[in-house]
Amino acid sequence: MNNYFSIADIDNVEDWVDQAIALKKEPLQDKKLGEDKTIGLLFFNPSLRTRLSTQKAALNLGMNVMVMNFTGEGWSLEYGDGTIMDQGNSEHVKEAAQVVSQYCDILAIRVFAHLKDKEEDYSEKVLKSFMEYATIPVVNMESATGHPLQALTDAITITEHKKKEKPKVVLSWAPHPKALPQAVANSFVEMMQRMDAHFVITHPKGYELASQITKEVPIDYNQENAFKDADFIYVKNWSAYQDYGKVLSTDADWKITEDKMKLTNQAKFMHCLPVRRNVVVDDAVIESEDAIVIQQANNRTYAAQLVLKKILKGLKGS
Amino acid sequence: MNNYFSIADIDNVEDWVDQAIALKKEPLQDKKLGEDKTIGLLFFNPSLRTRLSTQKAALNLGMNVMVMNFTGEGWSLEYGDGTIMDQGNSEHVKEAAQVVSQYCDILAIRVFAHLKDKEEDYSEKVLKSFMEYATIPVVNMESATGHPLQALTDAITITEHKKKEKPKVVLSWAPHPKALPQAVANSFVEMMQRMDAHFVITHPKGYELASQITKEVPIDYNQENAFKDADFIYVKNWSAYQDYGKVLSTDADWKITEDKMKLTNQAKFMHCLPVRRNVVVDDAVIESEDAIVIQQANNRTYAAQLVLKKILKGLKGS
Amino acid sequence: MNNYFSIADIDNVEDWVDQAIALKKEPLQDKKLGEDKTIGLLFFNPSLRTRLSTQKAALNLGMNVMVMNFTGEGWSLEYGDGTIMDQGNSEHVKEAAQVVSQYCDILAIRVFAHLKDKEEDYSEKVLKSFMEYATIPVVNMESATGHPLQALTDAITITEHKKKEKPKVVLSWAPHPKALPQAVANSFVEMMQRMDAHFVITHPKGYELASQITKEVPIDYNQENAFKDADFIYVKNWSAYQDYGKVLSTDADWKITEDKMKLTNQAKFMHCLPVRRNVVVDDAVIESEDAIVIQQANNRTYAAQLVLKKILKGLKGS
Repeated sequence: MNNYFSIADIDNVEDWVDQAIALKKEPLQDKKLGEDKTIGLLFFNPSLRTRLSTQKAALNLGMNVMVMNFTGEGWSLEYGDGTIMDQGNSEHVKEAAQVVSQYCDILAIRVFAHLKDKEEDYSEKVLKSFMEYATIPVVNMESATGHPLQALTDAITITEHKKKEKPKVVLSWAPHPKALPQAVANSFVEMMQRMDAHFVITHPKGYELASQITKEVPIDYNQENAFKDADFIYVKNWSAYQDYGKVLSTDADWKITEDKMKLTNQAKFMHCLPVRRNVVVDDAVIESEDAIVIQQANNRTYAAQLVLKKILKGLKGS
Repeated sequence: MNNYFSIADIDNVEDWVDQAIALKKEPLQDKKLGEDKTIGLLFFNPSLRTRLSTQKAALNLGMNVMVMNFTGEGWSLEYGDGTIMDQGNSEHVKEAAQVVSQYCDILAIRVFAHLKDKEEDYSEKVLKSFMEYATIPVVNMESATGHPLQALTDAITITEHKKKEKPKVVLSWAPHPKALPQAVANSFVEMMQRMDAHFVITHPKGYELASQITKEVPIDYNQENAFKDADFIYVKNWSAYQDYGKVLSTDADWKITEDKMKLTNQAKFMHCLPVRRNVVVDDAVIESEDAIVIQQANNRTYAAQLVLKKILKGLKGS
Repeated sequence: MNNYFSIADIDNVEDWVDQAIALKKEPLQDKKLGEDKTIGLLFFNPSLRTRLSTQKAALNLGMNVMVMNFTGEGWSLEYGDGTIMDQGNSEHVKEAAQVVSQYCDILAIRVFAHLKDKEEDYSEKVLKSFMEYATIPVVNMESATGHPLQALTDAITITEHKKKEKPKVVLSWAPHPKALPQAVANSFVEMMQRMDAHFVITHPKGYELASQITKEVPIDYNQENAFKDADFIYVKNWSAYQDYGKVLSTDADWKITEDKMKLTNQAKFMHCLPVRRNVVVDDAVIESEDAIVIQQANNRTYAAQLVLKKILKGLKGS
């Protein structure tokens, strides 16, 4: 494997999940694989889980880690072709990506959507530019439109906790005071279409995700109806895709409550975190025995470790 | 040992000091102990000495280190129970602490007093919340009310430099333009009550530290009188405890001068640093042969290393 | 070797270049040399190449690396003698330098010119203060007036690419919207005077570098004339030295174009990066086969590694 840009880079979800679960049992089994290899983690946005779990994954593989916060420690980059760079941007991604490639064996990048311009965000300008100009593999640590390390984590976590072959999985929108990207929801929707699950999305009208991602997935605008018999409730806020980047509703009726969870088949509650308690989900739900958000967070390490392991094996073979 | 929250976590000061001095002679003696163990350093405030010395201590023990500046690289946390999180805080400490525990074996945290609300600062809300929700040991790298790694450092340094069994140790307040926390002074006062020393505190009226900490320690409002026959002068500014967080005086008469040092028994001059020269202490004093501030700074490594070593041994045994 | 402050610390340029090229062939040959040694990287300014390449160099030598962004993670330092520190600066460099020396074996520092006060910048107050008070070797990662790791890199790169014994090397000023330091240009000029080259500087009138640095190097105010028969075109913007720190011209006629490059002996195009495309240099030039800016960036690792190796050998011998 070369880049890990989206879950399209996963050849076989079931195999990957099995391999990640095997890694989790013996996380140091490949500690020689990454020896004298260096990963550069570039952050254009804040990060807690991704920052620490990706570092931990690399350490488990014996790699060196160099972390760089591009904003603050670096400067802003130019992405346009032919731009006369007499404004704020000091360096072109063409140079930056090639240069970083001189010092690292793998590059991992976090860069969020700006939620101003749909075309620009969905073109994945930044991450695709790095992939184009870097001469080393690039890993997506959440880009404008996707968070494939989170989606792989979620696949692992659902597989670990499912009680039936084909569980019912519900992705539910929930309210949030700020405009958030669609990245986590998008990658989760893509992943669910590749797993053996009854998958339903529920959200208020106007919050439809991009149709090229949701495809045939059923949407139920009635949250309570969607929750019926669910085995997994995966919760996430996102801002509107059509009316791009807008907060159309902060309707507290969409908050996840104990009463709603009672409509399910004692569903597991999932969320990628960070989560705003009592806005997105009630304390009683996230503190219940059926909440598996911490187990999800733990699996972030093994999702990242599997991806890095596969990339490292590619390097070794080269 | 599990957490290192305050010097109450030291079972026997004399033993610990002896062990730290032994570590200092051979700092790499336990390099296998921390192998494949990871410490996460979380900074909610700036840090130089603590940042580098704690990293160095962990490296001496063979550990991996992950540093995170919570402000800037992360987001602000919520600590209240039942809060409807629709304001500035993006994540609850209940999740943050548990999540970080998935990636690290030990967590070390720096979080200063805000000096706005005495109750809140002295409740040690942040550090106690992390200790409550983290599932791994937590080390205090200076909290709202205490700096126990500094106090252990000071005990080591006094032991190394004392010329008599029971030296006279004076904690002297000194002027400073800004309002500073009481943390260093508090932990030093607690430590001196556990060492064999004639201990006196001197400061202007109104600067009394919390009585639950100073207990029976004599306070002399006359600095020159307090300095007489002293073997160690430990200097620190702090803001008022009663009139909480206020700068009641910047009286230059309380600055540490050569003349005042002449009143002592050729006392060693100590300060935790950073120190404002010619405000807190005259150049002539801090540059004299009796100043041992750099030796103190050096001992920060061995204080941290001893604490981490004891915690690692607890992990190994578990 | 102790400090690497300027290229005056290089005893024999030719030997050093040969040694760096040998390191590049087998970068891990000295991995035992840095074992249990720690380098502290202190950044007072942003950095991409220097940050990552110096880390990579240290890792290749088996060293531990501790990175500290002094602004943001730390506080501002005082450099004056006898200052009454009642203003913004919290710590004197006398303490800071000695303290950091307790935790590290080598210290590397980046601190740019402020371009306000020529005397102050050219006194190299910050770096020289660290060198004076630190008790460990100090490496210049770009100071107010010099960037000797870059100059060593450039010597390596020119040696690798030259087709004749004594190539013609041209340092050309180019326009830039912001006032930039003279550091890179200064060190390059110093280096060229120590290599076997026909060296010419070209820039608009008023942009003369300090004469104590340029000495007898010919200056040609006609860029096209200077480019004739050149084997290497080294491009860099700098602000004025005489009218200190001023941008006297942003004349686009000084931009590096394909047409100008055609005047040369198929010269290699060099730039230390970051570079503003189509302001400093046209896309067509930097994307041509004769541009060796990425090779330069790569050589940063081996320049830094050679310097660190020489310092480590000094430590070992002590």
